[in-house]
This record gives sequence, C-alpha cells and structure tokens, in this order.
Amino acid sequence: MDVTRENFGKALAKFAQAVAECDFVALDMEMTGLYETREHQPSRLDTREQRYQKLKRSVEAFGVIQVGICLFTWTTKDGIGFYEAQPFNFNVFPASSVGGVSVDEHFGCKISAFEFLAKNAFDFNKWVYQGIPFLRGDTAERIRSERTLLLTSRQRSMTPDDRHSDFAVQFEAALAEFIASKDTILRYDTTNTYQRKLIYDIVRIHDTLGTRSRVGCIEIFKGSRKTMQRHIGHKVQQFSACVDEARGFTAVIERLSAAQKPVVGHNMLLDVLHAYSKFVAQLPPTFAEFERAVAGFLPALIDTKFIIESTPDIKARYGTSNLDEIAPLLERDCAGPIRFHPHFHRNVSHNMHEAGFDAYMTGATFVRLLNLGSGGLDRAPELVLYRYLNKLYASTAEGISLNL
Amino acid sequence: MDVTRENFGKALAKFAQAVAECDFVALDMEMTGLYETREHQPSRLDTREQRYQKLKRSVEAFGVIQVGICLFTWTTKDGIGFYEAQPFNFNVFPASSVGGVSVDEHFGCKISAFEFLAKNAFDFNKWVYQGIPFLRGDTAERIRSERTLLLTSRQRSMTPDDRHSDFAVQFEAALAEFIASKDTILRYDTTNTYQRKLIYDIVRIHDTLGTRSRVGCIEIFKGSRKTMQRHIGHKVQQFSACVDEARGFTAVIERLSAAQKPVVGHNMLLDVLHAYSKFVAQLPPTFAEFERAVAGFLPALIDTKFIIESTPDIKARYGTSNLDEIAPLLERDCAGPIRFHPHFHRNVSHNMHEAGFDAYMTGATFVRLLNLGSGGLDRAPELVLYRYLNKLYASTAEGISLNL
Repeated sequence: MDVTRENFGKALAKFAQAVAECDFVALDMEMTGLYETREHQPSRLDTREQRYQKLKRSVEAFGVIQVGICLFTWTTKDGIGFYEAQPFNFNVFPASSVGGVSVDEHFGCKISAFEFLAKNAFDFNKWVYQGIPFLRGDTAERIRSERTLLLTSRQRSMTPDDRHSDFAVQFEAALAEFIASKDTILRYDTTNTYQRKLIYDIVRIHDTLGTRSRVGCIEIFKGSRKTMQRHIGHKVQQFSACVDEARGFTAVIERLSAAQKPVVGHNMLLDVLHAYSKFVAQLPPTFAEFERAVAGFLPALIDTKFIIESTPDIKARYGTSNLDEIAPLLERDCAGPIRFHPHFHRNVSHNMHEAGFDAYMTGATFVRLLNLGSGGLDRAPELVLYRYLNKLYASTAEGISLNL
Repeated sequence: MDVTRENFGKALAKFAQAVAECDFVALDMEMTGLYETREHQPSRLDTREQRYQKLKRSVEAFGVIQVGICLFTWTTKDGIGFYEAQPFNFNVFPASSVGGVSVDEHFGCKISAFEFLAKNAFDFNKWVYQGIPFLRGDTAERIRSERTLLLTSRQRSMTPDDRHSDFAVQFEAALAEFIASKDTILRYDTTNTYQRKLIYDIVRIHDTLGTRSRVGCIEIFKGSRKTMQRHIGHKVQQFSACVDEARGFTAVIERLSAAQKPVVGHNMLLDVLHAYSKFVAQLPPTFAEFERAVAGFLPALIDTKFIIESTPDIKARYGTSNLDEIAPLLERDCAGPIRFHPHFHRNVSHNMHEAGFDAYMTGATFVRLLNLGSGGLDRAPELVLYRYLNKLYASTAEGISLNL
C-alpha cells in the first residue's frame, strides 16, 4: 500500500490495527545519503564506539524519504498455514512550520544517492508534493509548551525596537481609547510580523481583552474574564491540533514501538538509527546510552544480514549477503509459506529499492532463512530469536555485529 | 527556452552566439536553501566582512538547481527600437562521477526552500532525471591531471593489503608466464575493484604491455613501445572527453564570463556567490580576495534592488523593492521597449520563480527603471552604469551595498 499525505489517515488506522495483530514486522528505509565523506565511511578497523559516532554523524546529516514497513501475520486457511504480508510504503517529507511556528531544518543530499534513487524510478515530485509530514516528539512538545505559555501568560515579554517604538506608542494610545469607549471591537492595521507580535504582547496584560488574527490587521475585542479564558483555551487546542497534524507519520513509529513486536531488517543499523533520530529523539552521545534507548524503543531486532554472515553454511552456499542477490536465490530454493494479504495484493509494487517492497523482501528472506532446514539454521523461531536477537550487522575490529 | 540534458548541446551553441551579440545579461538562480541556521541569516548589524563570511558558508552548504540567464539585445525593426529578450532556463544537477572517478558530494536542502519550489510548481523529477551535469573547473583539472599521471606513470604506487597479497602473488606469477609465452592476450578474472587496481598497478611497470577493462576480468596484451604509447594517449583522450561532458553547464558560465557583458540581477549577491562557488572555484577566504576574483569573473554587475533602495523617489513611489511586487507595477507604468526574440516567444514560461522567467523579469525591470524618466533616474545608460556599477544590495552596518 503506497501511502502519501492524501490517504494517510486511512492507512494509519489500518496499520494500527494490523501491527497489534501481526507476528513480526520488517523495516526498510530510503535516505538522501549514507556517509558524509570518506572519513565517515565504516571501516573494519573501527571500534564499536567509533562506528556509532560515524553513523550518528551520517544519520544526523541526511534525511529519510521513504519508510517501508511490512507486517507478517501467521494465518491458517483451508488447513494451510502461511505468513500473510501487508506491506506499507510511506512517503515522508518533514514539516517546516506548525501553526505559524517555524521548525524549518535542512538535510543533506548526496548526489550519488539521488542518482541511485533515479535509477530505481523514484518519484521526487511525489516525495516533496505528497510526502506525509513528520515532526519528532521532543520538538512537538517543546513548541506546544512554548505556545501554551505564550497564549496563557499575562506578562509582557517584548521591548519594542527603535524602528517600532512609535508604532507601539500609537497603538497603546488607541488601545486606551478603545478600552475607555463603548466600542466592542478595535481593528488595528499591521504591515509586518513584528507589529503583530507587538500588539499581542501589549494586549496580553489585559484579562478582559482578546485578539483575533485577520489579514492585514488584528482584531481586539472585549469580554468577561471567563469568555477570555475560554477563548485562550480554544486557541491552545487549535494549536495543539496543528501540532498533531504536523506530527503525521511519527504516529506510525509510535504504534510500531508500542506494539513491541520483533522487527526484522537487512543490514538494519542505519535504519534503526534513522528511525530513532528522525521520529523519537536526538541520538544519545554514546553507544552505551543508545543501547539503553533502543531497548525501550524497539526491544527485539533481528538483522538478516547478520544471520547470513554468522552462519558459514549459508554464506558458503549463496556466496553473498547482499539482499538484492540473495533474496531471489532463497526464493528459488524455498518459496516459503508467504502470501500477500488480499487487500494488499493489488497495490504491491515490485520495484526493488522501493522501501515497501524492500521491507517485504526482507521479511520474506527472514521466513525463508528460518525454513531452510538444512544449512545449519534451527527451525524453531524461539531458538533463532535467542541466537540472533539484537545483533545488528556491523563489521568492526570488535566483531561483525553491534549488540543492542 | 527550457534546457535539460537532452537539448543542452543545441542550447549551448545558441547561447554562445547570442551572448557575444547581446547588450546586457540578466541572471537569476534557484537554490536548495538560503541560510543554514538563524545565526547565518543576514543582520543589519553585520560588517561587510561578517556578511561575506555568513553568505559564503550558506552558499557552500546549499545547491543550485536552476540557472536563468536572459540575454537582452538592442534591435531595430521597421524604425522602432527595442530590447529583444532571449531567456534560457537551465536545469542543472551536479555530476557524481567522471569516467569511473567519484566526484560525489553532498548539498543541503532546506525544507522550506523545497516547499517554496513546490508552491511554484517546480518539477523535482526533471531536476534529478534531466538536469544538465556540471563540474567546477578546478575539480575537473585536478582529476584530469591525476588520471593522466596514473595512465602515463611507469611507477608502482600500491602495496597489496593483507587480504589481497595472495592474489597479487598469483597474478605476478601468471603475468611472468604470459610474458615468457607466445600468447598475445591474457584474460585475468577479478571480483572487486581493489583487484582491478592492483592489476593495473602491477602491469604499469612494463612498457610493452597494455590493459583493457572488461566485465569481470582485465585483458592484458602485448605490443611495441610505440603501440603502447598510442594506446595510453588514446586512454588519456577518452578520459578527457568524459571530463568535458561532465563539465556540462560550466561551459555556459565560461561563455558568460568571457563575453564580459554587464550582468543584471535583483538582490544578486547570493547569485554571484553561487555562480562563482559552483562553476568557477572555491570562494576565497576573505571579502577583499572575493572582490578581486569577481573583477576577473563578471566585471560589470548591476543590482536592480540596489537601484531601487538607493533612489528615494522610486522607493517612495512603489513602497517596495521586492521583485514580485515592483515588477508588475513598473510594467503597468512603462511597458518598456522589450520584446521576446521570435524563437523564444513560444517557449517562455510565465511562472514567477522559474529562474528563466525571473531573469527575464529582472532584465525587464532594469530596462523599465532606466526608462522611468521621472523619479530621479538618469536616462543615459552610461551614467546609470557609472553610478550603480558593482554595488550589490546588502544592508549592513556599513551601508546598503557591498561594492565589488
């Protein structure tokens, strides 16, 4: 299911229900770049801490543009058991402002990454024009509480600058006249944002006056204390609704985290770092702190690249741990008990490197690895989970995985 | 004329001829962002040097995606004189590799800048899929001389790493056997780039052996010293042709610079900095050095925003120096003796914020400012040039322009 801004509400409802019912989840992301410079590229000589620091820097430099999440649910029909797959391909583009408050940031784009996406028929217009907005939880809470404070405070916080001191004096005079009069509404013309902020700041100390933003002017009106409290309460709610809308895709990751299902990826360390950094909070300064943070975020991670790289029989048999290469070979050897959910069959793209399809291929590869039987792998998922749990592929001087 | 990778060759030929004949040029660019953070935003309190440092940093952080150049040529038809406008809208996307050599870089994208482009119907797919490549002169010369040195050198430069020492030994044995034999060609299988580099490095010390790159193997062949010199000369030429192709759009800026025509922009400081930084060389460390560099690059710059801001009558009459706002007002007051060149009329987009159209509007605004007559402006272009030449609008603590 390809998800954009337009069908996001419906998709979120479907996802929320399905993720609670599924057995495991596969995750894949498309990004605007991998490593800033050669110095930031992983090296086999890195310590784990060095690797974390390199990847942290890269993750903070680049953006996420597509998140593929495929839900797999064990299903029995006519006496036959299989995993039913529900792939979601979420197109995401960050929010730049929320209810007039700027949360504008910039992200890096690697030329070669854009060329790679272009080779795989990526639609850049869909990304920018129709991408689902997102806003990280900590940023959302910060601007929510700042705005609430601003709306409810009765303290002035601005001293007019030199260019606006006359404007402030004139407005205060007009306001005093309005208060003394029997008029119920004062419309005061403004020509820039600074003037508007100044008016809000001057009016806020009056608990029986309210303001409404209009094009080219601000409307000041009279009312009881109670009316004004209701009016402010309504403004707080309105802004809060804007924040929720801007959070957008972040809700998907919250549902995923809350479901606490095993999450499978292929060479998934960068995906997990991006998921945390873009949708949860700033990455912690050290690897030890990141380990603790991930335990609360996605407690059961399984990396199919690590399974392959750490199982000599499989590595020898297929000679590669690259998903593009091994996925079709595994599919040939073992179709695997996997079917698309009837509602998803129609909408499945089969473009490799579309995040939704790559997530599906990753989950299917996981199921096929479990079903290999021969090749040194145990069949029982519990054993597999125990052996491979939270070991993410990363070839360093200290081994081939980062253990979370 | 909208120019992409497909019609670039034809457009360059047309541009080269027209720029030599025109009277002045108008320039405008679209970028992926303006200022990195709030700290990098211009402030009226900046010194000129501080402003240069801020803008330099921003220019180096963001990319150029469209370059609009409109050529204006004084023409007389049926006894009537007018400026004939030829607007070119160049879509550009940087090269990431040249003949197998990576020149991959990353550029920042501001979320709000992408939203601004989207609001103005910008086609992101055209940008990435069809953008004309470009590669700065200094980078091009660096990789050209590095590759020439590599191709012509008879010195070994690599010591095989631990994982490839066996491979090197085996290849040297096979090579010795090949040299001693009557065989004329040796095909040696390779599985990675490092092995291929190693083979080139080992073969280079033999002046009667040559190499050809093949899929999955390298072909080594025998020949006279003369044959090998010709062979290497051919490879140097081939690589040089790749570099020229990757330089792409840079040729347009070179023709523009060589033509030494007056170049008009609106609030053009960022455009000039980007033009220099993306297509000529790295920006110099100080403003004084940049001044000297620009004198050689584009010696006659005229900023319509500076004309308006420094002419009280015009500023008072129109109340704005914003191009979007003042251009239609000036057009109402003075149609101006401006016509599109017959070959360009059909292809003109009228999308504000498409670089080609903005360049046309900037040039037309310049002509209309010259023709205002009243309003304090001299009519004679020579006087205008003298008064406004090389003063680029920039409101700082030291005045409203940077003088180049």
